[in-house]
Amino acid sequence: MPQPFDISLITRGARIRRSPFFEATLKYGCKSYTVYNHMLLPSYFDDPVKEYWKLIEGVTLWDVGVERQVEITGRDAFKFTNLLTPRDLSRCKVGQGKYVLITDENGGIINDPVLMRLGENHFWLAVADSDVLLWAKGVALNSGMDVEVREPDVSPIQIQGPKSKQVMERLFGGKILEMPYYHFVETKLDGIPLIVTRTGWTGEVGYEIYLRDGSRGVELWEKVMEAGKPDNIAPTGPSDIRRIEAGILNYGIDMTLAENPYEVGLERLVELDQKADFIGKEALRRIKAEGVKRKLVGSRCQIVCKKI
Amino acid sequence: MPQPFDISLITRGARIRRSPFFEATLKYGCKSYTVYNHMLLPSYFDDPVKEYWKLIEGVTLWDVGVERQVEITGRDAFKFTNLLTPRDLSRCKVGQGKYVLITDENGGIINDPVLMRLGENHFWLAVADSDVLLWAKGVALNSGMDVEVREPDVSPIQIQGPKSKQVMERLFGGKILEMPYYHFVETKLDGIPLIVTRTGWTGEVGYEIYLRDGSRGVELWEKVMEAGKPDNIAPTGPSDIRRIEAGILNYGIDMTLAENPYEVGLERLVELDQKADFIGKEALRRIKAEGVKRKLVGSRCQIVCKKI
Repeated sequence: MPQPFDISLITRGARIRRSPFFEATLKYGCKSYTVYNHMLLPSYFDDPVKEYWKLIEGVTLWDVGVERQVEITGRDAFKFTNLLTPRDLSRCKVGQGKYVLITDENGGIINDPVLMRLGENHFWLAVADSDVLLWAKGVALNSGMDVEVREPDVSPIQIQGPKSKQVMERLFGGKILEMPYYHFVETKLDGIPLIVTRTGWTGEVGYEIYLRDGSRGVELWEKVMEAGKPDNIAPTGPSDIRRIEAGILNYGIDMTLAENPYEVGLERLVELDQKADFIGKEALRRIKAEGVKRKLVGSRCQIVCKKI
Repeated sequence: MPQPFDISLITRGARIRRSPFFEATLKYGCKSYTVYNHMLLPSYFDDPVKEYWKLIEGVTLWDVGVERQVEITGRDAFKFTNLLTPRDLSRCKVGQGKYVLITDENGGIINDPVLMRLGENHFWLAVADSDVLLWAKGVALNSGMDVEVREPDVSPIQIQGPKSKQVMERLFGGKILEMPYYHFVETKLDGIPLIVTRTGWTGEVGYEIYLRDGSRGVELWEKVMEAGKPDNIAPTGPSDIRRIEAGILNYGIDMTLAENPYEVGLERLVELDQKADFIGKEALRRIKAEGVKRKLVGSRCQIVCKKI
């Protein structure tokens, strides 16, 4: 049994990067950070159970600048990006997003980003905690394809919870509410360049705002806080309680390079019948045919508290 | 100016892995951890200045299990590994190590690992804080070379300081002291499989012991503590004071993908005249010819404290 561990024992150094919203999260009383993609990720501002109820009943604001983007452009960007993922990107239109897996040649999971298609040959991968940038650059090197792979100046926040709609309407007008799930628009807010997406890590109604100018993070944060005032918007960390309840997996815990999509119940993200080739296709076809020997399952437990 | 930051504000989750020595570091009173290669790295057990003097005058023990290994094997392992680094590996014998850079096609620095040559076609890269595993796997994919790239069950500790010699002698016998700088031996300690190297992150006399069986971390730690008792060996974190004093760079702070070796004063690690091709050779040749526009330099400051 691992010993209990005091969370205050973790420190940081200059090596760990700060998001454009960092100063704002300090100002609003973030109590604890973790490290994700070599950056500080606010964990919570209040008791996690209280934060859960703020998300379920109201609206919450998260600094998820740690969701770094891997940007893929160039004449072969579509073909290259489709090579990286088992999802069939021919069914992803410009202006649309997809939850995708990045797999290696054995079908092992390298990451599970949200992919956005900004142009015919322009993609963003908003990555979980592993250096997909290095993987994609490595694959590109000998691919013979005309692509550029880089990390742009883009940092998302999430606005999640049932009251997120009215906050977004105040910020961007009523038209924003017509946006379908996993779609996005390019827009500006008082000149701040943004992409607004109908996505999130909660299973609740929610949006993400991708900031495209790192110098304007605190300004954007304050604008969202202001628009959310009538609904008591609260800065919180990502809710682990809610994401587990919603069956959303967390890379590095529920899946790693040692797991394949079939073992973690993400077979819906593997489209073996598509025409295009992708990394791991052969391995995943074999794994599907042979069946898996282990499988991640959910479990439910009820804890009854009695006064004693 | 960034605001001052309370280091106790950082937390951890199950996503962040523990080294095989973690329970021992807790037992010996580690006061603070940071996150490195998705793992917990003990930062300090005592005041950093006291820890500095323990290193300079005595002997210290560090848990650097976060130095993950990228293992490269297969018929083309030599050729492939030489492709990854600007150093000329034809001058690295089996049993020898090298401090190397890993560069991308633009000459940007991906990592600065210690490389060990375990066989003609068997290499370890003990990597700094970036996923070299993904980079190397990506490069291997379309390389047409017969190589396997993986992360083995290997976790190093460092034993550093002038009294490290007598501790190593007690553990492994006097022959260990004949080992030249940047060389290593494969050995066992009461059946625990190890590699012992004459390397470290201090500029002091020092050794690293690479544990090759993750289930025996605490056992190895206790054996080293026992052997170091006569010299008052102390568990500490890596000493930032000492490494800066010694001019040793720290990946993620002093150099990143955005810097090339010439900008950070590591041109001695770029061997452009070697016969072999390596990633970034062309770019680095051009950068060398054109000269760099910015350069990392050291500076010295003296602080005089007066009683007031």
